[in-house]
Amino acid sequence: MTERPDGHDTPDKSEDQGRVDPALLEALETALEGRDTAWLKRTFEGLHPADASDALEQLSSDDFGQVIGLLGDDFPADILVELRDEYRAAAVEMLPDEAVTAVLPDIESDDAAAILEDVEEDRRARILEDLAPLERATLEQALDFDEETAGRLMQREFVAAPEFWTVGHTIDHARNTGDALPEQFFDIYVVDPGFKVLGAVSLPLLLRTPREVKLASIMTEIEAQITTQMDQEEAAFLFQKYSLASAPVVDEAGRITGMITVDDMVDVIQEENTEDLLALSGVRSADGSDTVWDSVKARAPWLGINLFTAFFASGIISLFEPVLSAYVALAVLMPVVAALGGNAGSQALTVTVRAIAERELEGAAARRAIRRETLTGLANGLIFACGVGAVTFLWFGNVTLALTIGAAILATFIWGGFAGIMVPLALQRAGVDPAVASSVFLLTLTDTMAFLSFLGLATLVLL
Amino acid sequence: MTERPDGHDTPDKSEDQGRVDPALLEALETALEGRDTAWLKRTFEGLHPADASDALEQLSSDDFGQVIGLLGDDFPADILVELRDEYRAAAVEMLPDEAVTAVLPDIESDDAAAILEDVEEDRRARILEDLAPLERATLEQALDFDEETAGRLMQREFVAAPEFWTVGHTIDHARNTGDALPEQFFDIYVVDPGFKVLGAVSLPLLLRTPREVKLASIMTEIEAQITTQMDQEEAAFLFQKYSLASAPVVDEAGRITGMITVDDMVDVIQEENTEDLLALSGVRSADGSDTVWDSVKARAPWLGINLFTAFFASGIISLFEPVLSAYVALAVLMPVVAALGGNAGSQALTVTVRAIAERELEGAAARRAIRRETLTGLANGLIFACGVGAVTFLWFGNVTLALTIGAAILATFIWGGFAGIMVPLALQRAGVDPAVASSVFLLTLTDTMAFLSFLGLATLVLL
Repeated sequence: MTERPDGHDTPDKSEDQGRVDPALLEALETALEGRDTAWLKRTFEGLHPADASDALEQLSSDDFGQVIGLLGDDFPADILVELRDEYRAAAVEMLPDEAVTAVLPDIESDDAAAILEDVEEDRRARILEDLAPLERATLEQALDFDEETAGRLMQREFVAAPEFWTVGHTIDHARNTGDALPEQFFDIYVVDPGFKVLGAVSLPLLLRTPREVKLASIMTEIEAQITTQMDQEEAAFLFQKYSLASAPVVDEAGRITGMITVDDMVDVIQEENTEDLLALSGVRSADGSDTVWDSVKARAPWLGINLFTAFFASGIISLFEPVLSAYVALAVLMPVVAALGGNAGSQALTVTVRAIAERELEGAAARRAIRRETLTGLANGLIFACGVGAVTFLWFGNVTLALTIGAAILATFIWGGFAGIMVPLALQRAGVDPAVASSVFLLTLTDTMAFLSFLGLATLVLL
Repeated sequence: MTERPDGHDTPDKSEDQGRVDPALLEALETALEGRDTAWLKRTFEGLHPADASDALEQLSSDDFGQVIGLLGDDFPADILVELRDEYRAAAVEMLPDEAVTAVLPDIESDDAAAILEDVEEDRRARILEDLAPLERATLEQALDFDEETAGRLMQREFVAAPEFWTVGHTIDHARNTGDALPEQFFDIYVVDPGFKVLGAVSLPLLLRTPREVKLASIMTEIEAQITTQMDQEEAAFLFQKYSLASAPVVDEAGRITGMITVDDMVDVIQEENTEDLLALSGVRSADGSDTVWDSVKARAPWLGINLFTAFFASGIISLFEPVLSAYVALAVLMPVVAALGGNAGSQALTVTVRAIAERELEGAAARRAIRRETLTGLANGLIFACGVGAVTFLWFGNVTLALTIGAAILATFIWGGFAGIMVPLALQRAGVDPAVASSVFLLTLTDTMAFLSFLGLATLVLL
């Protein structure tokens, strides 16, 4: 949470609140043309950092670079923190070392680590060298944790108190510590002399409890035991499940070393959601600032795999050249079987991938879901076998052809439903992210079934 | 946030924390066979409500119904709140009126409204009748707001203080109010005598400020002006953007009427993410408890539309029957163009839908993205035109055929990239959710281009 001092320019509170004001963008571009550094400084000071960063992210990369160039050392730390990863990396790239060094002590350790993450190693070493020893050690430790772990994500700033402290003592201590406290925290962690976490006291609980009560007698259990090595996705799941506002992060010896707050978790949740959504379409990553080259690199690999699977499907079709030569209607109709069957399978796949991500498919629930998906394939298969058969009959006036395509639709739908749930479940068992590799497997399976069943049956009954 | 009293059975804190213990499930099923109500009560009391609800959600619907039957009035309110929507609706359906009436006063008003939402009207009226007048009025007001608005989502319990109160006065007041305070809150809202919100004081700020300081002199501006009528998705966006822990909700006259906390927003974010993901695959809704019939209803409509678009594509193919009859290789190869082109388009589509959901595609950013997607289509089109052309040449040894399919791939990729961004942008402009209708439009467009360009070119150069 960023808190704002009073009395700055209020952004619009209308329907469009939270969106970038086009007038602001225009003014920004005019100021850039006139190289009006004073205007930039004044404007950015008056804006919420989240609004300022959103406006900057709408600039072209040239204009964005010019803003960094003009502000230099004066580029506000809180805006740097708010920028999306790729813009922040670009900004840090352009800022002089001293500017980066100056920013780091002003921000929380997780944000500082995120900034240094993107800096190439030599430069990172130079910047770390210039920091105060304590600051430097904290950041070096943070960067030692693997990316996407709780250790990397946590902030070192948290509030802990021994169990024998009273509520009154704790509040007095907080008041005396003043600005040295973290700007935002939701719980006070109660620790033993070895810094093991015994429990937590939420701030509302602290507020409503009489001064003389000991923390030990009101503290509540820590629901989620988050370790520095824990995957951030796992931590996000625990935050969601237990509706946590914050959680302590402990090292291997069980000592508290940091804290994660829910607003960081919201970002993780969105990141994981984006990853799953894109992975299902075979996109590796996507950022607003991506160049064409980045987009090509993110998408070509899956298209490359798809090239092979598509030719594999062609290979199956080529087995049936005799019947295709004899009945051109088969060539006209076969994409219908492949398209509908592929879609029925994709529906089952997407539902399954989502249920796995939300941990709804474990044990008995998975068995029930397999049954449901296969039966849904059967039911929709019957409906669309009739539908496709009817249209085919009306178009070509051929009962045999209509029955053939209906049977192929039914077979492909049942197979699609079954494969749509089994493929992601099997990938998950094998320790592979089911979102990443499922689509390509599934569509190969449904295409194969569509062409085999339709053209195979046609060979049997028509030739 | 639910707080747990001390000393209850600690759930496992291992790698599997947060997951349902198979041993617990087995014990649960044994207890159900023996109709051991005492064991059920004892076990549920010892579990975190989120763990208990997860275990219940793994039971078959028969077993779940039996648990409700055995516990009846004693079914714990906090577990009811934690259950997923469809399980909660089922539980409320089965519980006697008095049990539901007894639960409502124990829980927050937003959770109570969520429970009554699913109850049919007659019964809802009966249950409301049995509540205390104040309770009843609060709930009736909450249910008056449209679903998926901030008004429906907010809780009526919040903490407000007049601006002339000092920090000390506020803390003393909280202590005297004690248990009547909301269990979880993050900010104290500073209001004028007309209950207009002037600002907020976060609890950490309250704690670190000397007792004699007035709230008015430390309060910070409210970043997000959330009204009761605001769409929950809009509210969730503001929470994310400004990293809010809580926000006041105001009525049309600007008076504070409730509060939304970040944990509710995390649920909304997940809901919206699920909707987008499923919509892209043409699934209307998905729940673990869905019956086959529910699944069919959720998926058949899109397959029905797909039936027409697939036959539309067939119609295009049928225009080229002469060339297909003459060259069966075209029938073998045409799915390659459609599959690769469709995937290239879907990649652009998914990236765009996600960027729209995260509000990254506004103004100049949209124009840059259109250019990027079209150029990415061109770049990948060139790569895969060569790849597909080469494979085709190796397979069929026909240069003309290889050049034809290469040209068709290039045309379909460029078109797919352009359509992949224009379709969702156009739908958004038209006020339609771009996730819902985009896929079917896009695949029709890419299929049309694939078959037209490949078979059309083949007619020109081969016949």
